[in-house]
Amino acid sequence: MERRLEEICDTYLPGLPTGIADAIRYGLRSPGKRIRPLLLLYAYRAVGGSGDATLLACGPEVIHAYSLVHDDLPCMDDDDMRRGRPTVHKVYGSRTAIIAGVAMIPVAAVVVRDAARAMRLPPEVGGTILQTLLEAGGVSGMIGGQSRDLAAEGLSLSLGDREEIHRAKTGALIVASLIMGALAAGASPLQVTAVERYGRAVGLAFQIMDDVLDVTSTTTALGKTTGRDAALGKSSYPALLGVEGAEARARALIHDGLHALAEQKLLTQELSQVANFMVTRTS
Amino acid sequence: MERRLEEICDTYLPGLPTGIADAIRYGLRSPGKRIRPLLLLYAYRAVGGSGDATLLACGPEVIHAYSLVHDDLPCMDDDDMRRGRPTVHKVYGSRTAIIAGVAMIPVAAVVVRDAARAMRLPPEVGGTILQTLLEAGGVSGMIGGQSRDLAAEGLSLSLGDREEIHRAKTGALIVASLIMGALAAGASPLQVTAVERYGRAVGLAFQIMDDVLDVTSTTTALGKTTGRDAALGKSSYPALLGVEGAEARARALIHDGLHALAEQKLLTQELSQVANFMVTRTS
Repeated sequence: MERRLEEICDTYLPGLPTGIADAIRYGLRSPGKRIRPLLLLYAYRAVGGSGDATLLACGPEVIHAYSLVHDDLPCMDDDDMRRGRPTVHKVYGSRTAIIAGVAMIPVAAVVVRDAARAMRLPPEVGGTILQTLLEAGGVSGMIGGQSRDLAAEGLSLSLGDREEIHRAKTGALIVASLIMGALAAGASPLQVTAVERYGRAVGLAFQIMDDVLDVTSTTTALGKTTGRDAALGKSSYPALLGVEGAEARARALIHDGLHALAEQKLLTQELSQVANFMVTRTS
Repeated sequence: MERRLEEICDTYLPGLPTGIADAIRYGLRSPGKRIRPLLLLYAYRAVGGSGDATLLACGPEVIHAYSLVHDDLPCMDDDDMRRGRPTVHKVYGSRTAIIAGVAMIPVAAVVVRDAARAMRLPPEVGGTILQTLLEAGGVSGMIGGQSRDLAAEGLSLSLGDREEIHRAKTGALIVASLIMGALAAGASPLQVTAVERYGRAVGLAFQIMDDVLDVTSTTTALGKTTGRDAALGKSSYPALLGVEGAEARARALIHDGLHALAEQKLLTQELSQVANFMVTRTS
């Protein structure tokens, strides 16, 4: 996957000024967990896909990487550290970080289009896959969630409102990754619904554990500034349910997600492991 | 066209916080000349299209509107006025302006997809049309040009370098609008090449006249802050060729563009008028 991301930089960043290309490369090289590409690949295999879906899997990761670059900006969450490294705007400045982030959206779209062609998917399937990614990254998904999250700073939110924001901000792209993988393998509508339910559960569990780690972990272990949610007055799961209550809720969600997969005989070891990782991870 | 842009706001901005949706609406309502949608419609008709392409025509305008929102940001060109109104970040703040701008990219993509479906275009034609727009808005087009333009501030550039930046920053989206319209009407490859040549000429002439107006017009007449290029130390056509030399170059380009259309029997009155408007406009 890391090799694929390097290939993307070599293939799709020609002609850009060095600063912008370097910032995009730096953003993509962030030592992340690559959860979204993994989920895409695992869903692809669970549905029976046997081709090479690694290039397709980079599509959601590029969108994710763009969102981190913009989230960290001084006028957004104002974070200096991300995964143990200075954030993109700390290294390249805000102006370059904004342009680099925006530039990553069409890069992701072209990656997905080229990947669908290389996999010889029917054009209408390729179109639906691209649409799935763009909607998850758009106003009804990530961007809507991000803006609602910023608008809610300092307000006390109900659990329902909080989950709605998480679903859009983080969950939409996780769900999209799974659906993209399933569609590329020719999934039936019921199979798509099953990976969607699994994705919603896993995405929310992931975000709950992010909140928990923000409370329980240290900046060194997590590789980003901790305690930010409390400092920004953001309502969070631990604040609403306590740490143990939040962890219990995450475990219940994972159980429901795995059940949805099992009903469609899609419960592979890979998909089970990544779900369990969500609730046991320490960074 | 204005009604279509309002429809887009009503259809595609649901669920967004009021601030972001308002900022997008404000950006789209900017009293612009709507050159890109007009060129798309005119190319569509010149090739023989007889359906309703007005929704499709909004796609490039949404991308254009996003680029203006980001161009005006304090960390970019830092403009307070645009088309006689305060810029989006002056009204809504930089944070909202950044998010609103980014949110407009997937909105444009979904608009184009829905328009292609409503026009019952074959899926592969719809895919090519969307791809044309995304590439023009991407690293090889607008974003690449914008970043090179910012990188060149204060440097003295050759005419060739300057044209290369213009071609990417402004020309790519104008050319894409024309190609999108032609493709939607079922253009042949030779017809696509002709509208592309026309578009390159018109796009460059447009930018040259923008530079000229920045020198010769007043802030009131133009509706945006004039004299910025000189103040920012940007090399410009009038600086390189003089005002009259720049105007002559724009006229020669228009002549070449109309010739390319005529060779393919695509020289309609509409396409001729908009080209001539480029070199006679005063704002």
